[in-house]
Amino acid sequence: MSSVFPDDSVGLVSPQVMTFSEPLALACGRDLNGYQLVYETYGELNAARSNAVLICHALSGHHHAAGYHSDSERKPGWWDSCIGPGKAIDTRKFFVVSLNNLGGCNGSTGPGSINPASGRPYGADFPVVTVEDWVNSQARLADALGIAQWAAVVGGSLGGMQAMQWAISYPQRIRHCLAIASAPKLSAQNIAFNEVSRQAILSDPQFHGGHFQEQGVIPKRGLMLARMVGHITYLSDDAMGEKFGRELKTDKLNYDFHSVEFQVESYLRYQGEEFSGRFDANTYLLMTKALDYFDPAAAHGGDLARTLAKVEADFCVMSFTTDWRFSPARSREIVEALIAAKKNVSYLEIDAPQGHDAFLMPIPRYLQAFDGYMNRILV
Amino acid sequence: MSSVFPDDSVGLVSPQVMTFSEPLALACGRDLNGYQLVYETYGELNAARSNAVLICHALSGHHHAAGYHSDSERKPGWWDSCIGPGKAIDTRKFFVVSLNNLGGCNGSTGPGSINPASGRPYGADFPVVTVEDWVNSQARLADALGIAQWAAVVGGSLGGMQAMQWAISYPQRIRHCLAIASAPKLSAQNIAFNEVSRQAILSDPQFHGGHFQEQGVIPKRGLMLARMVGHITYLSDDAMGEKFGRELKTDKLNYDFHSVEFQVESYLRYQGEEFSGRFDANTYLLMTKALDYFDPAAAHGGDLARTLAKVEADFCVMSFTTDWRFSPARSREIVEALIAAKKNVSYLEIDAPQGHDAFLMPIPRYLQAFDGYMNRILV
Repeated sequence: MSSVFPDDSVGLVSPQVMTFSEPLALACGRDLNGYQLVYETYGELNAARSNAVLICHALSGHHHAAGYHSDSERKPGWWDSCIGPGKAIDTRKFFVVSLNNLGGCNGSTGPGSINPASGRPYGADFPVVTVEDWVNSQARLADALGIAQWAAVVGGSLGGMQAMQWAISYPQRIRHCLAIASAPKLSAQNIAFNEVSRQAILSDPQFHGGHFQEQGVIPKRGLMLARMVGHITYLSDDAMGEKFGRELKTDKLNYDFHSVEFQVESYLRYQGEEFSGRFDANTYLLMTKALDYFDPAAAHGGDLARTLAKVEADFCVMSFTTDWRFSPARSREIVEALIAAKKNVSYLEIDAPQGHDAFLMPIPRYLQAFDGYMNRILV
Repeated sequence: MSSVFPDDSVGLVSPQVMTFSEPLALACGRDLNGYQLVYETYGELNAARSNAVLICHALSGHHHAAGYHSDSERKPGWWDSCIGPGKAIDTRKFFVVSLNNLGGCNGSTGPGSINPASGRPYGADFPVVTVEDWVNSQARLADALGIAQWAAVVGGSLGGMQAMQWAISYPQRIRHCLAIASAPKLSAQNIAFNEVSRQAILSDPQFHGGHFQEQGVIPKRGLMLARMVGHITYLSDDAMGEKFGRELKTDKLNYDFHSVEFQVESYLRYQGEEFSGRFDANTYLLMTKALDYFDPAAAHGGDLARTLAKVEADFCVMSFTTDWRFSPARSREIVEALIAAKKNVSYLEIDAPQGHDAFLMPIPRYLQAFDGYMNRILV
């Protein structure tokens, strides 16, 4: 029987759930009592348990990184271009683990889950989690899966921050760290965009102080605005220009505010609408705070090289020329700190017009370099 | 008696009002029946009536460009650094006119004015006005003031677009056009930011379809969000970094979403709050639409040089290196079209860290160049 999926796809995959009963101490000072993580795996763990790769997701990502949940699923996982047999993260060689982060809204314990203390959804009572907390929760998942050391931890954007934090928090448990389109910390402008998104959600009357779920509503407009702002920063000015220009949806101007006139307005409204129907507002707030708070160098007076002193992993850092959310200059900060700390680092700045979103795209030069790096990893 | 104002200030100024009873035909196809424009003047009109300079304001600007409305006014007009005795726009030489645009919220007829047809505030019924409409209304103001020809029309950002439109619409009535930190049309990204701002306002439950005034409320949160988004685009990433960095307001992180933690959040919330208390939401919508619609080249199939063919004014175009809202590349588009159309144009790209806001700042190199250009204008 011939498969309905492409030959280089991991094919049909099923999410799994791991339950943890031990409380997890969080950076905020609170403990999370019992939680579950939803995850997927692709490929086979080898006998030496030396071929495991962890995928860390970005702001709106989740565990479904590759393959299909059903024959009828229209689109594969979000990083399917990079994960599969013969792809950069080759599932014939690697055992790939991809999870939904704590605080997420795709199956792992998060604001939409029932708070055992109250019997009601956590909502705004879900603790603010940090990149460090995520990495700690991922380490427990590794323990449960019998993975003492990752061959590589890989992530783009906020996912790249988790990969870096792995190298810092668990130097012995990660051999290679791939941080793509990432940054060692947010800039004031990055924080500013996050703050606008948060205010859009917080000020939505349907937000109900984060307990909208109990009211049977969602802060749709706030989430929509947050996503619209986000989307502008994911694309380069040029990419937007190329994609939409000033093209009008209709023959003439409408001279009102409600009509969708320019293609770019149509795109943004669609993206916002679609997102607001599938993402949790509290999770969005948590993700932006985790971004804002990430600053591993702060522990050493802002000296990133000192923070990286005990790192044992080799690094692969990649950036994209037109990414203005996390520009190549931000990746170079990581590279320079690694060099100052005398660590092994490969760096590639990829000429790509797509802006920050490039890390999700099948750009030949990018896939080739990604593949090249993963190929040299011994398992 | 010594003045309480600096020597290079135009001193105490009083807004004046001009009423027009003749209907104004607008680009949208509607007529505006009777309207008033509030304006200020600085300096004296000479006998030949050849020394008049028109100041056109940007998105949130108004007629009060220079001097003080009272002895106790804390801050002078918004472009006081450039207008006054001995300043770039020297009021010992020029007669300066500065108005609040039609649709504004600072005294000129706009959405907050009473609609004579209904006896109630226009609100959302105020027609969508364009840069061309503004220039036409400004031409009437010039007529009323006995100014057949401007020595110069000057503006930054959206104000620069009006200056350009003057040169196109009334080639005989303008000798010099100064377009600073401006663009020949918005990019898709520019429109996208405007669309987010509009959606923030339109989706505010207090907006009431634009008739909030009659409900005795204002869409404060929407306006606040719009202003926050705007402010991010007015500053360069570096300027924000320089100004705020990742500096915390408190010693430690709060692990919540409501606290103002980073300085940049504090700045944005303050700017948003302050703005939402003084600006009209319908005016904000109108201003962003005027920006989106501005595209003088469209009349000639996108060929700006052809649009500029009949222009008689000399041009001075200035841009700022870190301005990413209207980058130097956008100013160069204007310059190249003027050169292709065989017009006189001076162009200066000023190295300044302040981003788009630079055009409002007393940057020595900028003031010097501005002054140099204005100096050579014969009156």
